Amino acid sequence: MRLVLFDGGRLGLLQGERVIDAGGLFAGERLRFPLTQMHLAIEDWGAVRPRLEKLAAAGGGTPLAAVRLEAPMPTPTKLVGAFSNYRRHTQEMRGAGAVQPRPDILLKAPSAIVGPADAVVLPGTGHPVHHEPELTLVIGRRARHVAAGEALSHVFGWTTLLDMTVREDGDRSRRKSYDSFAPMGPAIVTPDEVPDPQNLGIRLWVNGALRQDATTADMTFGIARIIAYASSVMTLHPGDVVATGTPEGVGPVVAGDTIAIEIERVGRMEIPVRGSGG
Amino acid sequence: MRLVLFDGGRLGLLQGERVIDAGGLFAGERLRFPLTQMHLAIEDWGAVRPRLEKLAAAGGGTPLAAVRLEAPMPTPTKLVGAFSNYRRHTQEMRGAGAVQPRPDILLKAPSAIVGPADAVVLPGTGHPVHHEPELTLVIGRRARHVAAGEALSHVFGWTTLLDMTVREDGDRSRRKSYDSFAPMGPAIVTPDEVPDPQNLGIRLWVNGALRQDATTADMTFGIARIIAYASSVMTLHPGDVVATGTPEGVGPVVAGDTIAIEIERVGRMEIPVRGSGG
Repeated sequence: MRLVLFDGGRLGLLQGERVIDAGGLFAGERLRFPLTQMHLAIEDWGAVRPRLEKLAAAGGGTPLAAVRLEAPMPTPTKLVGAFSNYRRHTQEMRGAGAVQPRPDILLKAPSAIVGPADAVVLPGTGHPVHHEPELTLVIGRRARHVAAGEALSHVFGWTTLLDMTVREDGDRSRRKSYDSFAPMGPAIVTPDEVPDPQNLGIRLWVNGALRQDATTADMTFGIARIIAYASSVMTLHPGDVVATGTPEGVGPVVAGDTIAIEIERVGRMEIPVRGSGG
Repeated sequence: MRLVLFDGGRLGLLQGERVIDAGGLFAGERLRFPLTQMHLAIEDWGAVRPRLEKLAAAGGGTPLAAVRLEAPMPTPTKLVGAFSNYRRHTQEMRGAGAVQPRPDILLKAPSAIVGPADAVVLPGTGHPVHHEPELTLVIGRRARHVAAGEALSHVFGWTTLLDMTVREDGDRSRRKSYDSFAPMGPAIVTPDEVPDPQNLGIRLWVNGALRQDATTADMTFGIARIIAYASSVMTLHPGDVVATGTPEGVGPVVAGDTIAIEIERVGRMEIPVRGSGG
C-alpha cells in the first residue's frame, strides 16, 4: 500500500497514476498542528488498514495530475538521520581509508520537511548546498532499546528523503535544518511492498545527469542496526522519521537545478531548486 | 504568571508554594500526543489569560508538595539550543582567546525533555556527561525571518533547562539527545515577570557545591539575536523551545549526584542523577 497526504492533509492511496481519497475515514476528527491524518492511520493501523483495502478494491480515484501531493509525514516529533553510513561516502568526505567505526545519528528539524510538489529553497549562506538521497523509514510502534532483530517490526513504512545539507564548519544539525531541506515522498510504502529494504537501487540525478547510483546493500550499518542504535539513545515515537544515510556522489546544487531522486520500490520525486530571492 | 503542567498533563498556576488547577478550562478537549494543555493555552492565550487571572484571584490551590510537576512544555516540535554563547564557556571548551564569531544553533531531541520531579539517567556510554544550565524560552507566535528588534515579542515565556551533554567525538545533536537529557521547569514564566531577561543570575550546584555562577548579561549574542538567527534558519512554531547557551564551569556528574539549577526570577529545580542500571 502506498499512502499519501494530499490537498490539505487528506489521507490517500496512491495506485499507479491515481489517488484514492481516504480522508473520509477521519471526517469526525479535528486535527490541530502538528497532528495529521497520517498520524491517525499509523496509530490505529489495525482498524484503518482493512478500510483502506476496501477502498482500494473499489477502485476509482483521481488522476495524480489533478491533486497536489504533500509530504506523507510532514510533522514527526523527530527527524533522525544516520550519517556516514555508506563506506564510499565516508571516504569521499574524510579521505581514502576513512571508516565510520560505529553507527551515529543526527537530528534534522521536522520543520525542514516539504513535499514532492515543493522546491528546495537555497538559504543564501554563501556556502554550497549538497544533495543527499536517503532511504527513509517511518516508525509505527514506539521503540526504546529495541534489539536489531526486532527493529524492523517497528517500521510502519518506507519513503524517500532528500537530506539537503549546507557544507561549512558550523553545527551539523543546523546545517541540515533550513526550511525546505527535507523533501519527502511521494508516499509511505508499507513493508509488504518492500520485501528486502537492504537491496534497493538508490539514484539521484541533477538536471538529468546521474550523480549518485548505489544500492542500500552498500550501507556500512544495516537499517535494523541503525534503528536499534537510535532507540538506544532516544525513544522513537510513532510517526518519527529515520533517514539511513546517503551513498557516495554528493555534490552542490544551484538555483534553477532540478533534483530527481529514485529508490527502487519506494518512489521517485523531482524537486526544483530555487534561490531564496531575499 | 507561572504556568505548570502537573499530575498527568493538567495546566496549573504556580503561586508561591501552591498550585491552582486550571485543567478544567480544557475539560472538553481530547488531546492526542504530542499535544498538551500548555499548547492550547499558548495557542489561545488571549482568551485563556483572563480566565487564569480570575482563577488566580480566587486563590486556593493545592500545596506544591501534594502534586507532581511535569515539564511545562514536554513535547515541542523543536528543541533548539544556541551554543558557545558565553565568552568564558567558549574559552573553557576551545582554549584561551577562542571566540564564537557568529550565532550558531543546534537541535536536541524533544524526547529528551523530562520534568522537575524526574531524574537525569546516565546512558552508560563510557564518556563523561556534563551539566549545562540554560535560560530557555518558549515561542508564543510563529517566527520566520524575524528581526532582532521584533524577536522578544515572539516569546511566550521563560523557563530553566539543563542541557545535559555527553562529551565525546560523535555528533553533537545526538550527544545532547539521550532520554532525560533535558530537564525543564518548574514553570513557564510569562514575560511580565521577567522585565530584563538579559540581566539574570544563572547558577548551578552539584551536591550543594557551586559550579556555575554567571549572569545572562555575559551572553556573547543576546537572546533577541539568537531568536532572530534561529528564525532565519527554520520556522519556529508556538511551543517550540529555544535554549540560549550555558556559561563557564560545565563539568561531569555521576550517578548519585544532585544537580541544582537556579535562574533568577525564572525558577529553580533539583534534579537527581541516576545510572541506567542496564
